[in-house]
Amino acid sequence: MTTARFDVLGIGNAIFDVLVHTDDAFLAAQGMSKGGMMLIDEARATAIYAAMGPATEMSGGSAANTIVGLADLGASAAYVGKVKDDQIGRMYSHDIRAAKVTFATPTAADGPATGCSYILVTPDGERTMNTYLGAAQNLTPADIDPAQISAARITYLEGYLWDPPEAKKAFVKAAEIAHGAGRQVALTLSDAFCIGRYRDEFLDLMRRHVVDIVFANEAELLSLYEGADFEAGLAQLRRDVRFAVVTRSEKGCVVVSGEETTAVPASVVAKVVDTTGAGDLFAAGFLFGLVRGASHEICGRFGALAAAEVIQHIGARPQTSLKDLARQHGLPV
Amino acid sequence: MTTARFDVLGIGNAIFDVLVHTDDAFLAAQGMSKGGMMLIDEARATAIYAAMGPATEMSGGSAANTIVGLADLGASAAYVGKVKDDQIGRMYSHDIRAAKVTFATPTAADGPATGCSYILVTPDGERTMNTYLGAAQNLTPADIDPAQISAARITYLEGYLWDPPEAKKAFVKAAEIAHGAGRQVALTLSDAFCIGRYRDEFLDLMRRHVVDIVFANEAELLSLYEGADFEAGLAQLRRDVRFAVVTRSEKGCVVVSGEETTAVPASVVAKVVDTTGAGDLFAAGFLFGLVRGASHEICGRFGALAAAEVIQHIGARPQTSLKDLARQHGLPV
Repeated sequence: MTTARFDVLGIGNAIFDVLVHTDDAFLAAQGMSKGGMMLIDEARATAIYAAMGPATEMSGGSAANTIVGLADLGASAAYVGKVKDDQIGRMYSHDIRAAKVTFATPTAADGPATGCSYILVTPDGERTMNTYLGAAQNLTPADIDPAQISAARITYLEGYLWDPPEAKKAFVKAAEIAHGAGRQVALTLSDAFCIGRYRDEFLDLMRRHVVDIVFANEAELLSLYEGADFEAGLAQLRRDVRFAVVTRSEKGCVVVSGEETTAVPASVVAKVVDTTGAGDLFAAGFLFGLVRGASHEICGRFGALAAAEVIQHIGARPQTSLKDLARQHGLPV
Repeated sequence: MTTARFDVLGIGNAIFDVLVHTDDAFLAAQGMSKGGMMLIDEARATAIYAAMGPATEMSGGSAANTIVGLADLGASAAYVGKVKDDQIGRMYSHDIRAAKVTFATPTAADGPATGCSYILVTPDGERTMNTYLGAAQNLTPADIDPAQISAARITYLEGYLWDPPEAKKAFVKAAEIAHGAGRQVALTLSDAFCIGRYRDEFLDLMRRHVVDIVFANEAELLSLYEGADFEAGLAQLRRDVRFAVVTRSEKGCVVVSGEETTAVPASVVAKVVDTTGAGDLFAAGFLFGLVRGASHEICGRFGALAAAEVIQHIGARPQTSLKDLARQHGLPV
């Protein structure tokens, strides 16, 4: 195995976030499931946008947020995702490259516009996402560059990729290449609704060892095993995957690896402004620790710190240097 | 004079803000004048964007920010400004309408893209703006609807409009219509550099009573009269315009009207995050008081409160309800 050019390469739906403060009544009137990610078509996107208030925009996308967090911590990182060559796509490409991430996926010249998510943030800080996949639907196996995947210590995939049919094939291709090169494959389960759509396939990916590392939150764990009991879910997860991290919001996270279990507390947060990106940045911090060879405890602390930064402001990309923050908290960067 | 349908109608360059945190070294390396607004062409826009970090986007434009603030306080407000029918222009149109502002200016079908400003925010909270006017250059007198102008108690114009040649004509046309309908015309001097370009014309507008009300900050006052003394500038301003408000950052504002002078303190702010929009939102609050018939003291307090809200977060549009804020501070909304 050659030296890894990238610590982590992420593959995901490249989505531009359109964030707005709203209230629970708006979610109810629009029939939205609070806290979830719903896929919407263009007509629904138009209707939601027309009904919602003035917004703030910034680049997003689950795996992309994680990759940006990793780069911010000082890791060498790459991203694979599909935008169109339109104004929003150009902003997206700028932002990820400006974050020092290698991003070489060809943009789509035609077809649907760059994907957008209308993210409604309620006063309690919870976010509800309505995603129009747009150009992200056009990520295909041809966008997977074997040399790039082989050069990454960890290939990180988002469960959301299971929605666009071609992206799913790109996902599997990337995982095969990574394993062929002796690298690791990580998967975030993304969203409880997403698991509802693809439960058996996700379990199959885990049990067939297509993925080595799984990230999930508590709701996703319970959705995966269709149970109400956290400990029982954790026991099943331990059997199904070699290494897993389950986040539990303010209760911190639990790392399960074989017989080993490590619980790490969450970082203290003065006020939760917007939870968008909490899981993504947790994964960024955790993976940073992992590629630096840190203990599970330290990995969890990196994750908690990055997640705490991102939930204290609007948007899913860090606004403070995570590297400085980690240093201030005595973490090894 | 018929009943006014609008409390205030604003006319300005419709600009989409692309905001980024940076440091003084970046400004120096790029040869930017800290705190100012520089006009840039497309090539320079491309170069700055390529050099700057990941951004956050939202609708901006000086007069538009003021009008959105007014609507947020509960005033009936309209805006006239030119965007292209492109992705950014559609976001712009959405945001201003979602803020309950009447916005009926036809979008440009071709020509340059919707205008953008690359706004660099330094750790001290100061903002330095690099504006590509784009479609805003195509605002013409044909975009001025006499019925709409006549229906507004105050037509509010930004000095920045003096940059695009056709917009300048639109400005003069709007002022003539407003006065013909017995309405008032307000002008913000916008920026010390802008005054440097058009000093004589601005003074002429004031002395010929094309404008009735002037908003300026201390630097703009000193630039207007090419002097270093605040009191001397204020005395000249008092002779040149019937009613003027000069803001002095943390020193509050001074209202001069004939022989009358009213000084109002600034609102206390815990931490200045980003001064973008401070003057715009001050004008929003002040004008709200004015159209509600409040005393100059109360007008100044409205202005101070709205400015304080906007400098405590990134971006030039309010993120908290200004109406609720005013109510909490015992102001009459």
